[in-house]
Amino acid sequence: MSGIRTLGIKTAKAPGRRSRRGRAGGAGRSAPRQNAHLHVPFITRKIPTYDLLNDEALARIEQAADRILAEIGIELREDAEAMRLYREAGATVTPVSDAAWNIRFEPGMLREILKTAPARFTQHARNPANNVEIGGDAVVFAPAYGSPFVMDLDKGRRYGTIADFENLVKLAQSSPWLHHSGGTICEPTDIAVNKRHLDMVHAHMRYSDRAFLGSITAPDRAADSIEMCRILFGAQFVDENCVIMGNFNTTSPLVLDGVTTAGIRTYAAAGQGSIHLPFLLGGAVSPLTMAGSVAQCLAESMASCALTQLVRPGAPAVLAGFLSSMSLRSGSPTFGTPEPALGSLVMGQLARRLNLPLRCAGNFSTSKRPDGQAMQQSMMSMMSAIQGGANYILHTAGFLDGLLSMSYEKFVMDCDMAGALHAYLNGIEVTEDTLGVEALAQNGPGEHLFGTDHTLRHYQTAYWDSGLNDDQPFETWDEQGGIDHAQRANARWKEILAGYEAPPMDESTGEALNDFIARRKASMPDAWY
Amino acid sequence: MSGIRTLGIKTAKAPGRRSRRGRAGGAGRSAPRQNAHLHVPFITRKIPTYDLLNDEALARIEQAADRILAEIGIELREDAEAMRLYREAGATVTPVSDAAWNIRFEPGMLREILKTAPARFTQHARNPANNVEIGGDAVVFAPAYGSPFVMDLDKGRRYGTIADFENLVKLAQSSPWLHHSGGTICEPTDIAVNKRHLDMVHAHMRYSDRAFLGSITAPDRAADSIEMCRILFGAQFVDENCVIMGNFNTTSPLVLDGVTTAGIRTYAAAGQGSIHLPFLLGGAVSPLTMAGSVAQCLAESMASCALTQLVRPGAPAVLAGFLSSMSLRSGSPTFGTPEPALGSLVMGQLARRLNLPLRCAGNFSTSKRPDGQAMQQSMMSMMSAIQGGANYILHTAGFLDGLLSMSYEKFVMDCDMAGALHAYLNGIEVTEDTLGVEALAQNGPGEHLFGTDHTLRHYQTAYWDSGLNDDQPFETWDEQGGIDHAQRANARWKEILAGYEAPPMDESTGEALNDFIARRKASMPDAWY
Repeated sequence: MSGIRTLGIKTAKAPGRRSRRGRAGGAGRSAPRQNAHLHVPFITRKIPTYDLLNDEALARIEQAADRILAEIGIELREDAEAMRLYREAGATVTPVSDAAWNIRFEPGMLREILKTAPARFTQHARNPANNVEIGGDAVVFAPAYGSPFVMDLDKGRRYGTIADFENLVKLAQSSPWLHHSGGTICEPTDIAVNKRHLDMVHAHMRYSDRAFLGSITAPDRAADSIEMCRILFGAQFVDENCVIMGNFNTTSPLVLDGVTTAGIRTYAAAGQGSIHLPFLLGGAVSPLTMAGSVAQCLAESMASCALTQLVRPGAPAVLAGFLSSMSLRSGSPTFGTPEPALGSLVMGQLARRLNLPLRCAGNFSTSKRPDGQAMQQSMMSMMSAIQGGANYILHTAGFLDGLLSMSYEKFVMDCDMAGALHAYLNGIEVTEDTLGVEALAQNGPGEHLFGTDHTLRHYQTAYWDSGLNDDQPFETWDEQGGIDHAQRANARWKEILAGYEAPPMDESTGEALNDFIARRKASMPDAWY
Repeated sequence: MSGIRTLGIKTAKAPGRRSRRGRAGGAGRSAPRQNAHLHVPFITRKIPTYDLLNDEALARIEQAADRILAEIGIELREDAEAMRLYREAGATVTPVSDAAWNIRFEPGMLREILKTAPARFTQHARNPANNVEIGGDAVVFAPAYGSPFVMDLDKGRRYGTIADFENLVKLAQSSPWLHHSGGTICEPTDIAVNKRHLDMVHAHMRYSDRAFLGSITAPDRAADSIEMCRILFGAQFVDENCVIMGNFNTTSPLVLDGVTTAGIRTYAAAGQGSIHLPFLLGGAVSPLTMAGSVAQCLAESMASCALTQLVRPGAPAVLAGFLSSMSLRSGSPTFGTPEPALGSLVMGQLARRLNLPLRCAGNFSTSKRPDGQAMQQSMMSMMSAIQGGANYILHTAGFLDGLLSMSYEKFVMDCDMAGALHAYLNGIEVTEDTLGVEALAQNGPGEHLFGTDHTLRHYQTAYWDSGLNDDQPFETWDEQGGIDHAQRANARWKEILAGYEAPPMDESTGEALNDFIARRKASMPDAWY
């Protein structure tokens, strides 16, 4: 500390000192001016990927995936059309019951089929400035997905409602550090199961002007989601462009259920994107050892992705993996742990060898509070996503309680962290200017650099400036109430919602969407399953 | 989530289910059995380093460091002996005052001098089972260093005392996830400045049986530290082996003060280790741009390291860097931010090119609470240390409040995180067994793997098992009080201290140390500066 204390920089006047602090912060729409250079519709990574394994080890994992597909096979249930597509493509189909088939693939067959899938594609947003690219060196952050519960510090944990859903879409839209509106940002459990997809898609369309995910829980709900996009974007545009994606889980180990495959076929037939996610809880639905989890993940995701190309060659498909571990003492799943983080790095390597975009990892945690555990686990998991080269990072914001709860506080904490990751992915520029030898020479040894030309030239862009973390001296922090990160986040999300304004929407489009939703809702009784 | 929900694994019986939980946790001496395979005196990394920059960029940084050393030079103050050593080695010395000299080095000169420094060396502990290696693929974790304050949830922030110092050494000794006892674990401000080094070194010797750091605040205190080692290890052993290290800060920018260089000379003459640390707060004492901070860091640390080889060729020297950023709005230093994390990765690359061990980064944070901010910042910083290939990671445990405070709670939180990093650095093993195709084949598609031979064979070693994080279902957690990570840590450190037992020490050695300390204390009046 001698450097700091000697120079007394805590009291020194810094260039560009600003009194403005708080309100607009990193989680809000208008972030501090220092971060403006980091605002992008999606990130283009400027740092290399972190390649954990060598080519030989990767080849062994690929061979294991090939063996799984050729020797054990995938069980497809209740989708004869998908069965027919796999069989016509050359797979070996063996019935295991009236409506289930074991499907085996010769080594290399799925890789050949996947050659027609794009390595990179654009998902269009209703505001074209927010279009995102998925694949290659592009990185897209989206909120967490699928929690039945929501929680905040005031009211604790309770089932999510459509009001929560809308709030969370608004929080996402308000953050410059997310790029995509996500999908089932929480389950709106106060709406009938067979109708809630309409309100969810509608919320993304109204309260966000970013790209989003549609429903996948039934083929007709997938079709409704795409039909609403035709109203928003125009039918021809939808046929020619990816404007929506569906996130499809395999039923691990090694099962594809018919609802999922029918949904995948619906999105692919419409030329829309799909994500093919094995949710692998090691020891439960995949081998305990991470090499085995990753091999199975590759096998399942390739088999699922390939279906899209059999329906419509060229349809966007995203390889994916949700790797997690478990407590072998309690049987509880554990998230944000080291082994899945390593596995995610390897999934990145495998996706690049396959030349497909990747969805992997996110801000995972098992904590029930937006506390130290939550952020430690999240950061370990999230770093694996961005270092490993994941392209679409679902679960970037809000994930708590092993994904059972979406936390309002963690949402804004994660958004701020996502901002820091923008700076991280920006890398280090090495030029004559950034090497700054002249800056050191200007005043010479022993003299601070506050007033150098170099400092004045770079001070607005040199460092990520968190809008949520507290960097003040202890005394100032203490005088201002001495509150912690979670309490700041609690105040912040309320401020953001209070200041939220919806992006404008063409009136006739709004009416057409309302009409469609009203007609669809009137066409069926409420169902709660 | 469909996988988890379908299989209902939250209630399924896991193999090896154990009721034991809590007391012994990851931060305690006896960690859960699952982690036993990770217990090591120091880590041997099994994962590659994360190499951020290409060779061309690294060469440019090295050239900038060479320019700084050749064109601007280092200012050496008040150590004519060090000046003489540099001059005799070929440096250009220009007096700038009666007791200060500008020292310039031709490009390549310091690299040539540093060739005699070991790339890897052993620091001996009084318990030989705890010897650590520093350099190469070895990774050593040590507690945070240098805070004047301590804090805990019960009593808040206050000045550190020798009682705190002893408590923190005991906490460190009790964690299987630290390897080294550190040095000024907090400032014992209740002991006179000119005497506290005796009590600090004594506490490390009595309450820990691991390696530690000695005093560097004055040459005679450095000499006392080494003399106490001669009592503990024997004079000949000390002359022939590294048993203590000193952590020396440069006075950035580009100054070496005479107290520091005299201390460095004292350690080197005794064949003991020294760490050469520029503490670079970008914009204050180094260029704002990270490439410039890293170039300066390399220049300063090389110049400081080289002095050891001029005193005693072959003396252990550790290249180091403490890179930090600042809030350009307030002038406050910021820690755990993305740019220094990137810079630390680059320091790793530069150290390997120089073939020297590296100390870099740690669990940095500016938070005043052991909260989400603290652990998010810590994890970002700490990941850079372990991914970048740092060998000696000071500040692994307890760092809060921009290093002004050592937190009891964060100490055990960080120790638990350090355990997770043992698993991370263990990497992914890819073998026929870990690929686990047979595990999947045993029950086939759709069947869980709980009871497979593969699971039973691997369940004790597959996953890091945190002793502090909560992974229980929400309802269980809630019934048990619904406490957060910091509150668990608060209970944990008290449990550990209550159960602490000092490692045995030979009685005559203990008496000899007491005699030495008593004599030294009696030889001078208290001084408080």
